[in-house]
Amino acid sequence: MPILNKDMQVCMSLAARPSNIGTRFHNFLYDELGLNFLYKAFTTTDLPGAVAGIRALGIRGCSVSMPFKEAIIPLVDHIEESAGAIQSVNTVVNDDGVLTASNTDYEAIAALLASHDVDTASRVLLRGSGGMAKAVTAAFRGAGFDHLTVVARNEQTGPALASQYGYEWVAEEREAGETDLVVNVTPLGMRGDQQDALAFAQDRIEAAHTVFDVVAFPSETPLVRAGRQAGKHVITGAEVIALQAARQFERYTGVALTDDQVARASEFSRAE
Amino acid sequence: MPILNKDMQVCMSLAARPSNIGTRFHNFLYDELGLNFLYKAFTTTDLPGAVAGIRALGIRGCSVSMPFKEAIIPLVDHIEESAGAIQSVNTVVNDDGVLTASNTDYEAIAALLASHDVDTASRVLLRGSGGMAKAVTAAFRGAGFDHLTVVARNEQTGPALASQYGYEWVAEEREAGETDLVVNVTPLGMRGDQQDALAFAQDRIEAAHTVFDVVAFPSETPLVRAGRQAGKHVITGAEVIALQAARQFERYTGVALTDDQVARASEFSRAE
Repeated sequence: MPILNKDMQVCMSLAARPSNIGTRFHNFLYDELGLNFLYKAFTTTDLPGAVAGIRALGIRGCSVSMPFKEAIIPLVDHIEESAGAIQSVNTVVNDDGVLTASNTDYEAIAALLASHDVDTASRVLLRGSGGMAKAVTAAFRGAGFDHLTVVARNEQTGPALASQYGYEWVAEEREAGETDLVVNVTPLGMRGDQQDALAFAQDRIEAAHTVFDVVAFPSETPLVRAGRQAGKHVITGAEVIALQAARQFERYTGVALTDDQVARASEFSRAE
Repeated sequence: MPILNKDMQVCMSLAARPSNIGTRFHNFLYDELGLNFLYKAFTTTDLPGAVAGIRALGIRGCSVSMPFKEAIIPLVDHIEESAGAIQSVNTVVNDDGVLTASNTDYEAIAALLASHDVDTASRVLLRGSGGMAKAVTAAFRGAGFDHLTVVARNEQTGPALASQYGYEWVAEEREAGETDLVVNVTPLGMRGDQQDALAFAQDRIEAAHTVFDVVAFPSETPLVRAGRQAGKHVITGAEVIALQAARQFERYTGVALTDDQVARASEFSRAE
């Protein structure tokens, strides 16, 4: 890193429990590309105060994580379709005091469904009903998938999510019919308590043509591993997080990253 | 610089027109001392919003320059004597959301009068009547100097400053009596339009025992040069700015700097 200077543009993140990923991803590329920017993760217990600070200090961009993704909506000036459709913001760009919110998770999932050339006639089984599940479900709907079943034990959020996008809901995987594509949007398989959990039954994985795990840490979850071993087409959470970060990067700096730049910055951001 | 990380504590400055000095001074020492801090200069047109951001984002410290030194007073929680005595703040420290304001310019001038062992019986002629002149005049009063004359053409601020601290005022230098110590707190001799101006008459400099120029850029002003050539005891603005920055550094980080560290960081901060 060069020594810091007064003219650097500042980007930041707001999360209840910040990770180091964004700070490392963005600063790695600022350094490599010679951009006079710096990026720093923050937490807060006063979201309106933090947004006032973003405006008053001319912070260029802010990534937004749990639990601020909905609460920030009334504090910004414009909501792009990607955030408005799911009432969830993960990116705020400040253009001379005008704050515009978007959701690059939604955009990244939509882009991955397209770039992986997933057949929209596929029968999808999606596990989860939280905030990220909403982004993923909305992206499937937006991409034109008509056959999707939400599997979620939560009897409030599960049916609510499914019906919002015109899909089916089941409480247990065994209640679901045949599946071409499984998508995990729960913490099953995530580093921590549930890291050994396989998000779908082995025989369902074997019957599908595509396996999609939104869990990003570790990059190889039990579901990703099982999909690869069974020779399936696999889409990973590492791809989601890298692509959404690349879209944030472009919004903040105006610089479109190459796949190679994204891959190296992602690797760097994970290796601490 | 190491690559930035999420756990860095952030210090900053607020000024209408930020210089690069603070950003370079503090970051140079963070790097050298291995402190997990970063420092960045900001400007704002919304001081209350900026202070809300300092609180909400947990910014550790903020240096305050023109035109915010008085306006920030009602926005903080505690005012130390150094700032309260002159109603002028140049430093804010954030202890878990509690903001404490102080004035390290005042402290630095008081410390330099002591460390240079200036005789408090000296007859002082001080040129200037702005915000910094107030800090300097107050420091002379606080140090026990009874004989001081303010010379300032401004017929409002000049007499007001002098009378506030129980001193004399004259509009023109020629009206002042004999002088042991001259102090310049105007832009005379500062880099720019008035860089060739000598702040006091040559014969007054020669009659004094001490010459004090608060102008910090360049480090050798015409007054400093004249004082040295005449063999006088000289106190420079470079000493003031370095010492006040060192006191800010200690408040923000808890680390007391050595003279050598301050000297090298000052040199680095000026060499851009």
